Amino acid sequence: MKVAVLGLGNMGAPIARRILEAGHEVSVYNRSQAPTQKLAEAGAKVATTPYEAVRGVDIAITMLADDHAVEQVVLGERGMIGSFAAGAIHVSMSTISVDLSGRLAEAHAQKKQRYVSAPVFGRPEAAQAGKLFVVAGGSDDNVARCAPIFGAIGQRTFHISEDPVAANVVKLGGNFLIASVIETFGEALALTRKYGVKPEQFVELLTNSLFAAPVYKTYATLVATEKFEPAGFKLPLGLKDVCLVLAAADAKRVPMPVAGVIRDHMLTGLAKGMDELDWSSFSRVIAENAGLKPA
Amino acid sequence: MKVAVLGLGNMGAPIARRILEAGHEVSVYNRSQAPTQKLAEAGAKVATTPYEAVRGVDIAITMLADDHAVEQVVLGERGMIGSFAAGAIHVSMSTISVDLSGRLAEAHAQKKQRYVSAPVFGRPEAAQAGKLFVVAGGSDDNVARCAPIFGAIGQRTFHISEDPVAANVVKLGGNFLIASVIETFGEALALTRKYGVKPEQFVELLTNSLFAAPVYKTYATLVATEKFEPAGFKLPLGLKDVCLVLAAADAKRVPMPVAGVIRDHMLTGLAKGMDELDWSSFSRVIAENAGLKPA
Amino acid sequence: MKVAVLGLGNMGAPIARRILEAGHEVSVYNRSQAPTQKLAEAGAKVATTPYEAVRGVDIAITMLADDHAVEQVVLGERGMIGSFAAGAIHVSMSTISVDLSGRLAEAHAQKKQRYVSAPVFGRPEAAQAGKLFVVAGGSDDNVARCAPIFGAIGQRTFHISEDPVAANVVKLGGNFLIASVIETFGEALALTRKYGVKPEQFVELLTNSLFAAPVYKTYATLVATEKFEPAGFKLPLGLKDVCLVLAAADAKRVPMPVAGVIRDHMLTGLAKGMDELDWSSFSRVIAENAGLKPA
Amino acid sequence: MKVAVLGLGNMGAPIARRILEAGHEVSVYNRSQAPTQKLAEAGAKVATTPYEAVRGVDIAITMLADDHAVEQVVLGERGMIGSFAAGAIHVSMSTISVDLSGRLAEAHAQKKQRYVSAPVFGRPEAAQAGKLFVVAGGSDDNVARCAPIFGAIGQRTFHISEDPVAANVVKLGGNFLIASVIETFGEALALTRKYGVKPEQFVELLTNSLFAAPVYKTYATLVATEKFEPAGFKLPLGLKDVCLVLAAADAKRVPMPVAGVIRDHMLTGLAKGMDELDWSSFSRVIAENAGLKPA
Repeated sequence: MKVAVLGLGNMGAPIARRILEAGHEVSVYNRSQAPTQKLAEAGAKVATTPYEAVRGVDIAITMLADDHAVEQVVLGERGMIGSFAAGAIHVSMSTISVDLSGRLAEAHAQKKQRYVSAPVFGRPEAAQAGKLFVVAGGSDDNVARCAPIFGAIGQRTFHISEDPVAANVVKLGGNFLIASVIETFGEALALTRKYGVKPEQFVELLTNSLFAAPVYKTYATLVATEKFEPAGFKLPLGLKDVCLVLAAADAKRVPMPVAGVIRDHMLTGLAKGMDELDWSSFSRVIAENAGLKPA
Repeated sequence: MKVAVLGLGNMGAPIARRILEAGHEVSVYNRSQAPTQKLAEAGAKVATTPYEAVRGVDIAITMLADDHAVEQVVLGERGMIGSFAAGAIHVSMSTISVDLSGRLAEAHAQKKQRYVSAPVFGRPEAAQAGKLFVVAGGSDDNVARCAPIFGAIGQRTFHISEDPVAANVVKLGGNFLIASVIETFGEALALTRKYGVKPEQFVELLTNSLFAAPVYKTYATLVATEKFEPAGFKLPLGLKDVCLVLAAADAKRVPMPVAGVIRDHMLTGLAKGMDELDWSSFSRVIAENAGLKPA
Repeated sequence: MKVAVLGLGNMGAPIARRILEAGHEVSVYNRSQAPTQKLAEAGAKVATTPYEAVRGVDIAITMLADDHAVEQVVLGERGMIGSFAAGAIHVSMSTISVDLSGRLAEAHAQKKQRYVSAPVFGRPEAAQAGKLFVVAGGSDDNVARCAPIFGAIGQRTFHISEDPVAANVVKLGGNFLIASVIETFGEALALTRKYGVKPEQFVELLTNSLFAAPVYKTYATLVATEKFEPAGFKLPLGLKDVCLVLAAADAKRVPMPVAGVIRDHMLTGLAKGMDELDWSSFSRVIAENAGLKPA
Repeated sequence: MKVAVLGLGNMGAPIARRILEAGHEVSVYNRSQAPTQKLAEAGAKVATTPYEAVRGVDIAITMLADDHAVEQVVLGERGMIGSFAAGAIHVSMSTISVDLSGRLAEAHAQKKQRYVSAPVFGRPEAAQAGKLFVVAGGSDDNVARCAPIFGAIGQRTFHISEDPVAANVVKLGGNFLIASVIETFGEALALTRKYGVKPEQFVELLTNSLFAAPVYKTYATLVATEKFEPAGFKLPLGLKDVCLVLAAADAKRVPMPVAGVIRDHMLTGLAKGMDELDWSSFSRVIAENAGLKPA
């Protein structure tokens, strides 16, 4: 298939590479040039606008930082919507608002273009290994057509709904649960540290008993060791995600008090200058609130 | 060894049976007579007071409902402390306050009796299967002596500290994390349900990806299906545990805002008459707050 | 002076009338025609577009429902900005976002028009009586020119800052404090009601001792009597305001946990169908959470 | 009348002096001797035990730091209950738990002694000026008998209920509302400060418009100026009161989320060493959480 990948950050670059290695024809676009070079060497065609990148492709994947970037790339000047073929599928993988996802679905429908919402779970290492989890929202037919691509980048695809927006909200719900692991483990660790329990022992116990899941192994260790640099995913992006969760919740009138607690701790982290740290660093705020010095 | 088991509820009864089956000599005590009968048939000696139950034993296990019950059985009239041999080990398995655990340690020390705090993780099914996780706090020597007993009832023992109180606080921290799974999954589920996502699909996705941990399989399913009867662990006991967490946190000046959120949802559940339901039923309050009808 | 009033709701209509009665020449605009009639009878000139309404005036007041309405009326098609004279002053009295207020300031500056932010405190009764409190943000000169108008509608003007946005944030902070009175008095009342204290006695005591302020007299009585109809200010508008508070706080990285608690109670109220009730009705959610039946 | 005053702290000492000055015969007791001296000079009889202090009096007032102190003085060794005359009235003015108040009522009833719960609102300055507000719970007859005493110390008595415990819960509800003023004004101030509004202007505006209540004048000023020393009422005592509120709420299953938020901020203040500051200093934690330096 002919596939365009728009956005070559920590996640987009390895995704493009995996698709290339799976034998597809790949064109890439990125706002800055630097990240395109290695992919060009590996055989990707480099485009200088989204408009150019998606011309003639079967599938165009967007993997961008936020709503604003997606809006620019899809609907902005020299955006992809202008040259995208009728019948071609836009696969939106970024974590975006439910509001924007709904607007994209409409905009594509008006042009007889297809739209699949397919956010993913997994950090950059998982993207490199083709071990992402893909959460797909869209018609059976559209999702089926994307199967070869999803297979190249992920270990499993969950086709969650015919409604693309449902996939976005599931991604937001999942991100909220990951943030909740950081928050609640951070609180439990503050408690046990104040009673003299060693952080590594508490982590060892939990992750080898009831909490033996990947998300706990990753984040409980980060919180316990406080190794927040280099950041896998920075705190301002974490706050952006929690705000998307709260906006989606507000729109349907769903109170999510723990999301509010998390947002407040993140705001304090940022108010104190933690912009460059990994998003799990908001657990540092929790520890400080209990009077604990850095680990 | 000669072992006494004081308290034959959902957890104590299968624990006594496992120890009996492992070939030890077991005496049992329970406030009401009914639960003792089956154990008597299986070979246990039935005592009518704690005082009588622990006379001559090497190890006495308490597995009771709350601080009050433990205080009565250990320190009250005809309590075990009066007849317990010097050098014998009291293994306190109940989820009790850090305050009481500290007082028990002192009281036993004065009588040259030994004390190991050994709360367990696992629901009644795990107790029946000998698959509990044991969190032990006490001297190396004391914990080593209990190994045959811990081996009979659990799949793994974590010797967390020489300080018995540390084991209690670890248990409280763990229970808080379990309650947090109910709370946060409840919030995420309310969000996704309002957007039309099917609960079972959301559970399927999470428990087969990042959240593939036993605690998620158990509680996400309970929350999604809302099968709160029969109760494995009733809501008032859940509230009791969260209050113990908050008391332990207050004593060391640790803010735990998510514990506060959970307590508030539990109080509403109880204010609305959910006393007989499983403790995971406080997720029903979260769903109702979003205007969702029972599943 | 020649004054335009754009927006004739519960607040705008009495404001226009007060200015008319003070002897000024008043033109009015409202999206729907009905509210203009009585003002026309009292001597106001009725315009059918904002563009027409503000032509030739010295001061144009906007008092509209939300950001969207203000944006339409000022910057939209046939909006006031197109015909507003250089040197004329736009007095923005609506409760709007700090973001929009900043953009209005810029837009007017580009056209050499003047901008004063002047949100008010007081319910419709106070507007009718000319007893509003005016919070003004803008240059000394601009605010001084508005003095005759502010004097016609309010009992006192607080010139809070040269920066118009500061007035908006003060208004948001004040509205947050009013919502906090509803929230916290609601919690205290739930507590005392459960112990058998009569609501009216608790209100009597507080408002005649430490809490003898207008805001307590108004809202404690509303909360205690649960007379939420007819609504002075509807719950969805209350939620809108709290969301503006949280957005302003997020932009400057200020955690406001009580604002989060209030938002959650309001969302539950709306999820349960309280859209038409007074915004103080979210205290009903607090009472229900404690298992209390309607008063 | 013959009156005993037990407890001569910031509040008890001026209360005893007022009663003395109103012409009553006063005996006093305090754990430490120092505070008794000045009252002795003013004509009070000094007793060395509560037992001795209340012998022969008509009314005995307790004004002590906490539950523990009240329990000791009333029910402990050489406690007042042993020598208190049948028919005499114990007026409990301390802020104590509803649980202890209930137990005192029972204990006195068994001895045919009378019990009036009469906590007061007002800081030490108000006590010196005889300007306290008295919240009385007890039978009409008993409260009527105390009228001369209440008149000597307070500006107004509210007879809230025949049930003494109701007066305690009203006092707790009131204290919660005062703490809420500190919390919510602290949040609003953090917001407006980050937008460049001067604290004193925000206070001026509020306390001269909707929030013109004594409690706002006192606490908004304290929060805005951050003058937390010397302490009128120390932070650990503030936390004690909020914990009494939460305990009373738990007992009747009333969620009070704002009380939880306050408790968490107080815990952080204490974890960071603010034990000697005025209880309003927990607003400092709120400001720090927004990245604000001390005023």
